[in-house]
This record gives sequence, C-alpha cells and structure tokens, in this order.
Amino acid sequence: MVYVNENILKTKRVFPRQNRYHCHRYDMNENPEGLPKEFVDEVLKEVTPQFLSIYPEQDRFLKKYSDFIGVGFENVIATNGLDMAIRYLLEIFGEKNKNVVTVSPSFEMYWVNCNILGLKHVPVPYNDDLTLDINKILDAINEDTRVVVLVNPNNPVGNVYSNSEIEAIVTKAAKYNALVIVDEAYHYFYDKTFLNHVFKYDNVLVMRTFSKLFSMAACRLGVVIGNKKLIEYVKTARLTFDVNSFALLFGEKILDHPDLIDRLIESERKGKEYTLNLLKENNYKCMESKGNFIFIETKTDAHVVSDKLEKEYNVLVHAYGNEMLRKYIRVSTGSIEAMKFFMDCLLKCDK
Amino acid sequence: MVYVNENILKTKRVFPRQNRYHCHRYDMNENPEGLPKEFVDEVLKEVTPQFLSIYPEQDRFLKKYSDFIGVGFENVIATNGLDMAIRYLLEIFGEKNKNVVTVSPSFEMYWVNCNILGLKHVPVPYNDDLTLDINKILDAINEDTRVVVLVNPNNPVGNVYSNSEIEAIVTKAAKYNALVIVDEAYHYFYDKTFLNHVFKYDNVLVMRTFSKLFSMAACRLGVVIGNKKLIEYVKTARLTFDVNSFALLFGEKILDHPDLIDRLIESERKGKEYTLNLLKENNYKCMESKGNFIFIETKTDAHVVSDKLEKEYNVLVHAYGNEMLRKYIRVSTGSIEAMKFFMDCLLKCDK
Repeated sequence: MVYVNENILKTKRVFPRQNRYHCHRYDMNENPEGLPKEFVDEVLKEVTPQFLSIYPEQDRFLKKYSDFIGVGFENVIATNGLDMAIRYLLEIFGEKNKNVVTVSPSFEMYWVNCNILGLKHVPVPYNDDLTLDINKILDAINEDTRVVVLVNPNNPVGNVYSNSEIEAIVTKAAKYNALVIVDEAYHYFYDKTFLNHVFKYDNVLVMRTFSKLFSMAACRLGVVIGNKKLIEYVKTARLTFDVNSFALLFGEKILDHPDLIDRLIESERKGKEYTLNLLKENNYKCMESKGNFIFIETKTDAHVVSDKLEKEYNVLVHAYGNEMLRKYIRVSTGSIEAMKFFMDCLLKCDK
Repeated sequence: MVYVNENILKTKRVFPRQNRYHCHRYDMNENPEGLPKEFVDEVLKEVTPQFLSIYPEQDRFLKKYSDFIGVGFENVIATNGLDMAIRYLLEIFGEKNKNVVTVSPSFEMYWVNCNILGLKHVPVPYNDDLTLDINKILDAINEDTRVVVLVNPNNPVGNVYSNSEIEAIVTKAAKYNALVIVDEAYHYFYDKTFLNHVFKYDNVLVMRTFSKLFSMAACRLGVVIGNKKLIEYVKTARLTFDVNSFALLFGEKILDHPDLIDRLIESERKGKEYTLNLLKENNYKCMESKGNFIFIETKTDAHVVSDKLEKEYNVLVHAYGNEMLRKYIRVSTGSIEAMKFFMDCLLKCDK
C-alpha cells in the first residue's frame, strides 16, 4: 500500500473509444479530411534524424504565432494541447475546495480536472430549451470563485457570448479576484474573438487550439494568450519540454501559409452551409452552432441513430447520456464532400 | 489581480537555452546523431493528413511496448516524456508539505515539481568525493516520506544501485507507505533493471524514456511501468490526450526493429569506450558512468572549458554551478565519429 492523493481516489475517468482510424469520424470535431497532402509532405521534408533527437524548442513558434495574432512574444505560451492548458490554469489559478464556474453542458475536461485537483465545480445549467441565462452565471460568481470558464462558441451547444455578456462576467469575476478563461478552441469557425480583453482586463486569458480548423489533433498544440504577468505564471508551472517538435513545426508552417488557412475556413463554411440547408430541407431541427459542428435533434431515438450510423456505415457521431441532450447528436462538419457522405448515411439511419 | 496558487508564486524556473539545432550537442544526453535516416524516412511514409487530424490513441503502442518488455498491457502507461510522468507521480503519490526524498545532485525536475506542487524536497547529498552513502538515504526515509526517487544510473554522476541497496530502500519506504520511483531513463546504456521489483513489491514504479538511446527527444515519449493498481491511478490523473501520435508511431516502429536497438547500443558502447580510453591516455579523471554520458574532471577551470568549447567550436557540454560539481563537465556520448570530434575540441580547449 502507498499513500494516494484523495482527489485521485475519488475521481472516475471515462476515456474516448480507440480504433477510430478506419472510421468516418464526425464525433470529436476534428476536421474529417485534414490538411492538404502536398502541404503535409512538404513539411515532413524537414524531419531528419537530428530533428528527432533534439529536445523541443518553443521560441521560434511563439515568435511567429504572436506576430500572427498581433500580440507580444511575452503574451503567449504553447501547451501540449488545450488538455494541458486546462490543467495548468486550474493548478495555478484554482484553489482547493474553492469554485470553478462553468456552464453545463460544456467541455467536460474542465470538471474532470477540477476533480483531479480537488477544486469545486459549480455548473450553471442551460434552460431545458438549451438557451442560457447570463444572469445565472453572474449569480454563480461570488467570493468563493477562483476561475470562470467560458467556452466560446460553447461545445456542444454551439452558442456564443456577446460583448456585454462577457464584460459583465469579467467585471463580476474581477470583483472577487477570479480569473476568466475564454476558451476559443473554435475560433476561425467563428470570427469574433475576445483576444483584446486580455489587455483590457487583468483577469482574462484566451485559449486557442491547432486541433480543430488546423487539423492537427494528432500533434497536440494549444496556445494560451494573456498579459505578461499571467503568462509568466503559466511558464512557471509548465513542464520543461511540454510541446513536441512536430507540433511546433506544423504549427509554424501553417502560420507561414495564410492562404491555406483561408482555404480551410472556406471549405468548412461551404460544407456546413450545405449540411444546414439539407437538414432544413429534410425538416430537421438543429441548434445554430458557431463551431465546426452541428447539434441535430434526431427524428428517431438519437442513441439508436448513432448506433446504426456506426454499425451500418462506420460513421461516428457524438450522442449524449445527459438527460437534457438525449435527443441530440453532435456532428463535426467538414467539406461538402465529407458532409454529403454523412447526410446520405443520416437520412438512411434516422427514419 | 487574480488569486494565484502560493507554490507557483514561490517557484523560480530556469529553462534550458534554445537555438541548439546548429550546435554540436553533448549537453543534454540526447544521441548526438540520432536514428538512421532510412528508418526515419520509412516511418514518415505513414504520416498522412488523416493521421495528423485524428486525436492520438495509445493502446496499440502500449500493447507492443508491454509485450516488448514482457509485462501485461495493464502494467504500462505512456506519458508526454518523463517530464509529464514526474509531474503525474508527484501529484498522485505526493502529499502537500510531506517529503520527497532524492539524492543530490540528481535530475532537477524532481525538486522543481516539488516546488510547483508544494511538496517538501529532502535532498540526500553525495559525499565530497561524489560517492554515495546508502545509509543516509535510509535515514532520510521516515513517517513524513511519501515518495523516494532513485535515478538509476543517476544523472549526472552516473553511479548505480545494487540489488541489496534498492531492496533496503524499498523495504524502508514500504514501512511508511511511501512510493519508490526507479527512474531508468538511461536503461539500454546500462543493462541492469529493477523492473521485476514492480511485481515483487507493491510500492515501486519504474520509468523509461525514448529520448535517450531511442533518439527521439523531440517526440516526447516516456513510459511508467507498475502493478495494475498503481498504473490505474496514473490513468486517472492523466490528460485525455497526453502523448502525441508521432511519438506513438516512432515508438512502435522502433520496437518493431530490435536489430536497430542493438545497433544503437553497440554504436554508443564503442563511442563511449573510445572516449574513456582517450581520456585515460590524456590523464583525465572521470566518474565511471553507466549512462550515455561521462562526467569529466577538467584540467583547467570547467566553466572556462565549457565556454571555450562553445565559442570556439560550437560544442555544447553541461557545466555546473553547484559547488560539489564545479570541477566537472558532463558530456553526452555517441558514436566513435561523434566522440572523435568532441575529444579533438576538448583537448584544444582544456590546456
């Protein structure tokens, strides 16, 4: 027997399924098709035995990234996916037995990490019709709050926050010295950003990922953006060699090709528009999502549809155990071609 | 202002220098030359846009790795380098304000992580002649001990532990429900392993890395090996997507080529033997190291030698601020060719 941290003893984990390589993947908001092959092949030419043998270095990527988004080098840090960023931020700005406020449903890794770290998760539930009352978030922020999380657009519902909503939340949080994390994982699918808030307020951090539009979930690359002081704290808490060199290399090369980014956005926009139109033609109700996913109310049982899609067409979508979400599936969007295939399968399975 | 964890406020970090790509690197125990180019090119053929876009999956690698070392699938977990493994293990098995015992000097990330997590680091110093008294380690283990760390061979001194020494430490630790981490980062340079101890005792975890002999420090791949129960705790604490897909792919491919592993070991063995002989011929004193590094007492000031090596030959070695180590440089070893180059430079700079 050895001593084990009590939070770990109390935490139960559920991990995503494996063996997804040979499936049609619409379940985890990856880009179903990925980056252009010629781009990938070009980048791989830089991978040599020496490249592999050397410990990773972040600075060149950080320089490029900070220029790209128009902030200072000292305002950014890269992490091993946002998975790692969430852990760092809750470790640094969370306090044992004090509150982390999120809406619910949202990205579950926030409360999984609360459990692991012994922080108290305070979920603010959506209304039954999946609308959200901002006053409920404001009411949840009090002297016990250390961190407030806003995923914008929120996953899985896809709703977004307005300027005045974010500002009210940031101001209330500031009153109690609480940090506000604005998780912009779905930026680029949704133009609007609260990046300027990291300079306007001293209690805001913004996060971005390369796993979604940039189609490199395999690499693990997330970025935290904030004022110098907050970023210094993250640097203090970080692993020495957090992000691997492949992530940094692919990240840099994507930033070198703004034309590629535009093409990815355009392909995604067309595919989503195509899907939304076809869903409407077929009398589907769906939540207007600003991310690279659509939240669809199925006509027959959502879990049966999800199972059929997988068994009959090897198509993966996300269905939910949560009572409020039981009628829905969440479907990642991609190019028109990818979405044609998905819609063909859906229309056959949901009748 | 926002609330910040007190441990983070108290921690100061120093990060390794960057821009090492165009240097001759003998400073961080990477393999100076790396894997064979034809092997690397062959592996890269499997990297497609789809490969990049999919979240990583560990299981196939874990199956292969557990077979390779002859343990069960449930006895291993992969981590984002041992950097991440150290953090996980101290988070899970450490307790705030309780003790983590290590020898000193050793791998500094153990106490850096103690600082970050608010654990108390208890260093057991080497004697002035860099010998180690095992009784001092045993004496340091008491009711306040939660974790004992043994890097074997220890970095930077390179000494190793005997069976009876490890067993005495494990037994004493068990008395106080403390975990013993046996960090075998330098395994393969040193045959002997305490892997069987993870089944013989219920308070032992062994760690291995792919950054050293396997020459893929850029990828970040570490492995923790232990009994099912201890590994389950690590799984509970881990990030969902910890290790990236490149690390897993290269890891698998190396395991598929035991001939390659043999060649790497042989090349390293010859290069080290060559270097030790040449050092002896030139009347150098050095510590007998079982890792892929040699701890050399320089004839002139070690810091001056280190600076000259860098300025005049673009050669990086590790010199130390620590008083006990001020006379030494640590030099990573590689093939005879790599070591010939290093020795030429050393003999010119240290006179």
